[in-house]
Amino acid sequence: MNNTIIAKFGGSSLSNGEQFKKVKDIVLSNPDIKVVVPSAPGKNEDEKHKVTDLLLMCHQLGSHKLNFEEVFNIVRRRYLDIKNELDLDLDIEKEMDLIDEEFKKGRDQSYFASRGEYLNGKLLADYLGFKFLDAQEVIRITNGKPDMEKSMELIAEKIGPEDYVVVPGFYGLNEKGKIETFSRGGSDISGSILAAGMNAEKYENWTDVSGFYIADPKIVGAGLPMATVTYKELRELSYMGAPVLHEDAIFPIKALGIPIQILNTNSPEDPGTMILPDETAEDSKSVITGIAGKKDFTVIRVEKVYMSEDLSFYRRMMSIFESNEINVEHMPTSIDTVSFVVPTVQIEGKESKITGEISIYCDPDDIVVTKGMAIIAVVGRGMVSAKGTSALLFSALAEEGVNIRMISQGSGEMNIIIGVENEDFEKAIKGIYKKFQKENKI
Amino acid sequence: MNNTIIAKFGGSSLSNGEQFKKVKDIVLSNPDIKVVVPSAPGKNEDEKHKVTDLLLMCHQLGSHKLNFEEVFNIVRRRYLDIKNELDLDLDIEKEMDLIDEEFKKGRDQSYFASRGEYLNGKLLADYLGFKFLDAQEVIRITNGKPDMEKSMELIAEKIGPEDYVVVPGFYGLNEKGKIETFSRGGSDISGSILAAGMNAEKYENWTDVSGFYIADPKIVGAGLPMATVTYKELRELSYMGAPVLHEDAIFPIKALGIPIQILNTNSPEDPGTMILPDETAEDSKSVITGIAGKKDFTVIRVEKVYMSEDLSFYRRMMSIFESNEINVEHMPTSIDTVSFVVPTVQIEGKESKITGEISIYCDPDDIVVTKGMAIIAVVGRGMVSAKGTSALLFSALAEEGVNIRMISQGSGEMNIIIGVENEDFEKAIKGIYKKFQKENKI
Repeated sequence: MNNTIIAKFGGSSLSNGEQFKKVKDIVLSNPDIKVVVPSAPGKNEDEKHKVTDLLLMCHQLGSHKLNFEEVFNIVRRRYLDIKNELDLDLDIEKEMDLIDEEFKKGRDQSYFASRGEYLNGKLLADYLGFKFLDAQEVIRITNGKPDMEKSMELIAEKIGPEDYVVVPGFYGLNEKGKIETFSRGGSDISGSILAAGMNAEKYENWTDVSGFYIADPKIVGAGLPMATVTYKELRELSYMGAPVLHEDAIFPIKALGIPIQILNTNSPEDPGTMILPDETAEDSKSVITGIAGKKDFTVIRVEKVYMSEDLSFYRRMMSIFESNEINVEHMPTSIDTVSFVVPTVQIEGKESKITGEISIYCDPDDIVVTKGMAIIAVVGRGMVSAKGTSALLFSALAEEGVNIRMISQGSGEMNIIIGVENEDFEKAIKGIYKKFQKENKI
Repeated sequence: MNNTIIAKFGGSSLSNGEQFKKVKDIVLSNPDIKVVVPSAPGKNEDEKHKVTDLLLMCHQLGSHKLNFEEVFNIVRRRYLDIKNELDLDLDIEKEMDLIDEEFKKGRDQSYFASRGEYLNGKLLADYLGFKFLDAQEVIRITNGKPDMEKSMELIAEKIGPEDYVVVPGFYGLNEKGKIETFSRGGSDISGSILAAGMNAEKYENWTDVSGFYIADPKIVGAGLPMATVTYKELRELSYMGAPVLHEDAIFPIKALGIPIQILNTNSPEDPGTMILPDETAEDSKSVITGIAGKKDFTVIRVEKVYMSEDLSFYRRMMSIFESNEINVEHMPTSIDTVSFVVPTVQIEGKESKITGEISIYCDPDDIVVTKGMAIIAVVGRGMVSAKGTSALLFSALAEEGVNIRMISQGSGEMNIIIGVENEDFEKAIKGIYKKFQKENKI
């Protein structure tokens, strides 16, 4: 590990000249920031479209043999506006003409999509005085996934320890030698690969929020961002629907233990959220790191006396879910009953088939199917050691009058899973958040 | 259903003449008590052995060709003491001589064991002025289980609506025409079969306690008995180790919805515990009906990222437990982890085989095996409607400083399952009991 910092800037951080200036201030204020990864220009007050969306529209029009020049002209104008506002000399017009020519040759969707980052990278490198290094040179993709081995080799080869470079995010070169974009996580993945390749000290991920929210601000109001969160907590919150970094963006640096810092380009002094490897994470002062959840689960409650003495019962039940391609998310057990919690969308139309198969193969005393359950995960590595967390959690729900339909917590877990009615979802999250905040446990 | 009441008296209720007098007072005070089912004389302050244990000892001695007269003389003396104290004319001496002769012929264990109830029934019938009806006449056993169809036929045939009879408990006639005893539940089962056969209004089960305790008195001190409990709650508490009626004793009358009342021969005015069919059970005023639990479970915690998206994961896991003959009692899930809770006694010696198989067939990221967990079930039909039960429960545990290692509650359940360290078992039960008692929710 060395002092190198990788700084990735999201689309809103680079949506116009004014934002570029903020980025320059941030980057130049820290000489350790040696690799900058830009997204394509995003939306802002004046601009209603992301450049990438416009480029995809160009591709769509082109693939129907329709004229896309009008749309591409908006893209042109976006980059020219930035160039002019920043008073740059770079011949971005020529770059855009070349791309226009390629477009007309009928290039594939990935190529179209990737040009937003490419052009933004060109402008940003010029503006920062950094070297532009095309992602094609260093990011390799095999079978749709980052090819870490090849990418790390190329990064070591092409970026020297004293280099200052801009590498556009979102794309790389695949095993066929063609440009390919990442399906999910976009530029976040590029930044993570570069951080891994450089064995960076830190991966800064600059956005338009001052970190990850503890709970959905649409539910709890403008809340607090998490100070620290571990990879693992993040994975759990992400799985439960919290809008955080996608797992794919964490994977490349997870094994190396490189921390990620989520920062706000518009408020660079804010401490943001630090994502830490599980091993090195200091003990959290807060008990709860985050609260997230999803609606629309179905509960299949199966009752069978002496269930747990029937050695093959669960295997038979699970074979039924497997053959019907249903993912069982939770299965809280009671005495003689087990509730299988599955996504409603997966069971729709298969209900009577599945209950029929359970009746035939598992001989239950009763089967009850109930829809409309929401699942909430309360996640926090501080929960393992903090006693009384469950008490506080269930007090919060009792005070809000929320009916608890399911509870699941395993051994040594840093989360509690609760099931509530769909209509109690927001009330429950709000209640938990408020309670833990009041008790200074967030 | 008619007004008939079946009254079964346990061994301590019939251990000597003094106890017989109490039984007579109880039986004759209620003309609806038409069928009385006695156990064999049990222990009391003066008598250190149950008659049935003495009879089994006789059988054991006899089967080794040893002299059992000395032991049988204790049995003789027990019945003669009762006869003399109650000043009865019945020639019980002749009955005992006949039995002695049969014993010497080398009869099987069931025959020996059944004679305690037989002789006690003879004495009690004489004392009450009821007709003695041998269990051989009305109780049929097929494949070791009550033969309800045949027994009910015989009961209808042999016991008229105006008859007052004593039928000894514990035994009947099997499909081979031989006397057979019930393996578990003993005379409780006989009483239940007779209640079913008579379509009784109530089955009174007279013991030496004033009902079932809400929690183990050895843990919470002389506590309160339950006022009412449903068949289902009882099954749950019994499964979790509470000393209540065995399922086999409830089965015969369950379908008919006949209530069972647990009463105290030594304190007949106490209301006791009423066991009600689930369907007719009035809403309980108390939230918790009972607390029970068992120690010595092992948790096998398996971690696997994207577990629930792997359709065959659980089926493969369950096949491993099945082939190793392990009963999975609970399996609380978290995100990417599931904890399989199994009885430690079942996994002993198989641990490395099982974790090895999980590694090979399920490709987990991590497996952790932890022993020494106790499971506590808090049971109460009032819990389904009462909000705030979980809050109260977990507050109680937090106040006692109990670390919660597992929670499981399914949809619409009338119980919560929690896992705690073995050493916290008593503390947890005591804490929960105290808390709910304080809040008037017991």
